[in-house]
Amino acid sequence: MSSLRIINANISTPLGNSARRGDEMSELLCIPDGGIVIDDGVITFVGKMDDMPFPDCDANVIDAEGRAVIPGFVDSHTHLVFGGYRPDEFEWRLKGDSYMSIMERGGGIQSTVNATRAESFEALVEKARWFVDRMSEMGVTTVEAKSGYGLDTGTELKMLDVINTLAGEKEGKLRVVPTFLGAHAVPSEYKGRTGDYVDLMISEMIPAAKGKARFFDIFTEKNVFEIEDSRRLLNAARDAGFELKLHADEIVTLGGAELAAEVGAVSADHLLHVSDEGIRRMAEEGVVATLLPLTAFALREPYAPARRFIKAGAAVALATDLNPGSCFSGSIPLTIALACIYMGMSVEETITALTLNGAAAVGLAEETGSIETGKSGDIVILNFDTYRSLPYYVGMNCVRTVISRGRIVTQNK
Amino acid sequence: MSSLRIINANISTPLGNSARRGDEMSELLCIPDGGIVIDDGVITFVGKMDDMPFPDCDANVIDAEGRAVIPGFVDSHTHLVFGGYRPDEFEWRLKGDSYMSIMERGGGIQSTVNATRAESFEALVEKARWFVDRMSEMGVTTVEAKSGYGLDTGTELKMLDVINTLAGEKEGKLRVVPTFLGAHAVPSEYKGRTGDYVDLMISEMIPAAKGKARFFDIFTEKNVFEIEDSRRLLNAARDAGFELKLHADEIVTLGGAELAAEVGAVSADHLLHVSDEGIRRMAEEGVVATLLPLTAFALREPYAPARRFIKAGAAVALATDLNPGSCFSGSIPLTIALACIYMGMSVEETITALTLNGAAAVGLAEETGSIETGKSGDIVILNFDTYRSLPYYVGMNCVRTVISRGRIVTQNK
Repeated sequence: MSSLRIINANISTPLGNSARRGDEMSELLCIPDGGIVIDDGVITFVGKMDDMPFPDCDANVIDAEGRAVIPGFVDSHTHLVFGGYRPDEFEWRLKGDSYMSIMERGGGIQSTVNATRAESFEALVEKARWFVDRMSEMGVTTVEAKSGYGLDTGTELKMLDVINTLAGEKEGKLRVVPTFLGAHAVPSEYKGRTGDYVDLMISEMIPAAKGKARFFDIFTEKNVFEIEDSRRLLNAARDAGFELKLHADEIVTLGGAELAAEVGAVSADHLLHVSDEGIRRMAEEGVVATLLPLTAFALREPYAPARRFIKAGAAVALATDLNPGSCFSGSIPLTIALACIYMGMSVEETITALTLNGAAAVGLAEETGSIETGKSGDIVILNFDTYRSLPYYVGMNCVRTVISRGRIVTQNK
Repeated sequence: MSSLRIINANISTPLGNSARRGDEMSELLCIPDGGIVIDDGVITFVGKMDDMPFPDCDANVIDAEGRAVIPGFVDSHTHLVFGGYRPDEFEWRLKGDSYMSIMERGGGIQSTVNATRAESFEALVEKARWFVDRMSEMGVTTVEAKSGYGLDTGTELKMLDVINTLAGEKEGKLRVVPTFLGAHAVPSEYKGRTGDYVDLMISEMIPAAKGKARFFDIFTEKNVFEIEDSRRLLNAARDAGFELKLHADEIVTLGGAELAAEVGAVSADHLLHVSDEGIRRMAEEGVVATLLPLTAFALREPYAPARRFIKAGAAVALATDLNPGSCFSGSIPLTIALACIYMGMSVEETITALTLNGAAAVGLAEETGSIETGKSGDIVILNFDTYRSLPYYVGMNCVRTVISRGRIVTQNK
């Protein structure tokens, strides 16, 4: 049996096996002079140092020396696997070029689709692994990863195989949750024939992706997959056994949040232009609101209405949206800074959103997202003695040691 | 003789031994398939690989493998040395507390002054060195460091000794430029007696700091050191042999920029509320405008008018303002993101502002800030093949290898 003990820890954690909603998001259990025992990857003790069980002879011990200790972060919305990069397009956008003109110059999702189709399986794995290492340095112990740059059956399956390869690595630095996002965009070969692509997804792609992904996700947006097509696809995916996610109400108010509530989605994401009714329905149905402030920051868009969600009693998660187009960033520190400085979230709410509520957004709230007995040993030790350093050390990484499933996977200087 | 060669480099650099002004800031020399030779810390060759002189047998070789190579960054405005931290105050501010109420609760500069006075020389060195390591990871090869948390002769000298200890380390990761900032605030013992503190500075502190700092800096601001006191102090410091810097027009439009031009300051910094006349005068006199977007970001203030400075033909530098109060961040990646996304600066202007113009802001444009023969071997290799990745990889560190004075000092994963 492998055993790890963390001593002299200033522990703070949300509690529970499901998303914390509304005011509950502020509630952290704090244990100064705390200790944690992890046996075979699972937390078996959390409490005061004085109450800690007598150590096994061979237990590894980490002395946190009074530093803040929190659950590992869950990044519940990423496009981790992709071919190519799009720095030129980023610059065009800064110069004020419209999305349409960028598309015409060969930018947009389709350019990543072309690069991903052309890329080998091995190259995609290697590239994704580099980003996984960067995530681990920032304290991420669980990441959701979407397909969606294939938009044909073969490449979508290749992407899911890449994601599952990372998910299946015994020595992997973090837990990977696969999401099938064949409905990310209508591929250029189906331009003007969205219905045909929806048919292809239902008849071929969804059945083919079954068993390779836990979640089905869709970009529900005006001129992409509108409400009726989205509903068809989401119902078909649910019938095939997928749990559901939506990119909802990102660019215009379309009713994506309401649809997420209707179909019983686990999360709806983005939500910059969500309606009051959408917020109310999501709170009512327990759909996690996954907010992605890095994307809004990179696109100079307004931030999603975190406070309105929390006031309505909804559960808010925060994630990075790492992708090569609208938001080439996986910065957990900047996500925290934006949440606290620009979205009016408290530090405690932000921690809950990036840990337990992120875990709930990927259906893993019973397994990770908090420091409690029975949960996975996914733990971060900060460089400072208080979790308040997370927004205070603005945009900088506070993470010192990352423990994933009971193993030390990253040790920063 | 120690020799280092960088091969297969996609080099981009501003050129010159002085600040680039206005449109010149956009001009980078680009050498694809380039090579660099550094002998005894000094660049002796920059050019095409084909023209590279035959290697010495014992030269160390770094193969950049086509990656982007730029000059090391110069962070020309930091408060690197300080006692204590102020995370509580950061949180109070987010909750909307006024600066005055924060002061009354024991926050503000004075709380760092108290902590710095109480801290030992050794503890201050150790703490500053941790931040120096973080800076080096982000590609900083030259940093300016200010005193200003002593506000009495003994502690100000202690701070300068800390800075000079870091500056004097033969194996140090970066070049440190010391600035005397005794005029950072009026200490609590002199409350209501600003004139007496100015007298003390002129009679005792400035003479005592002479030889320990290259620059004299002052917080010229309403209700702190207003124009007349600032002028007296700046003239006295210049007479004592200091070069001059000002914190100018940060909170209100006071005429700090105009004063900087009048006294021949090397730089004026912050400048959020600079007047048109101040911009014109700074451009005319060649005062570098050092803009600090992280502080504006952390305080939710508007960004300084970079484009107006550039349009007026002024030289703009960017720096972090790392300090434990208004801006506890040394993030070069976030500085770049804010400059490009929120201040309308191009990537090329941003690079010039963080390299050659930063060097000019600390009086070292002849020594560093560009990749040219005769300059110090201060060079950064990025993880990507284009410098455009700097803003594109939003808020994330693109830096792979850092070479400072011809030595590899940081190798990121």
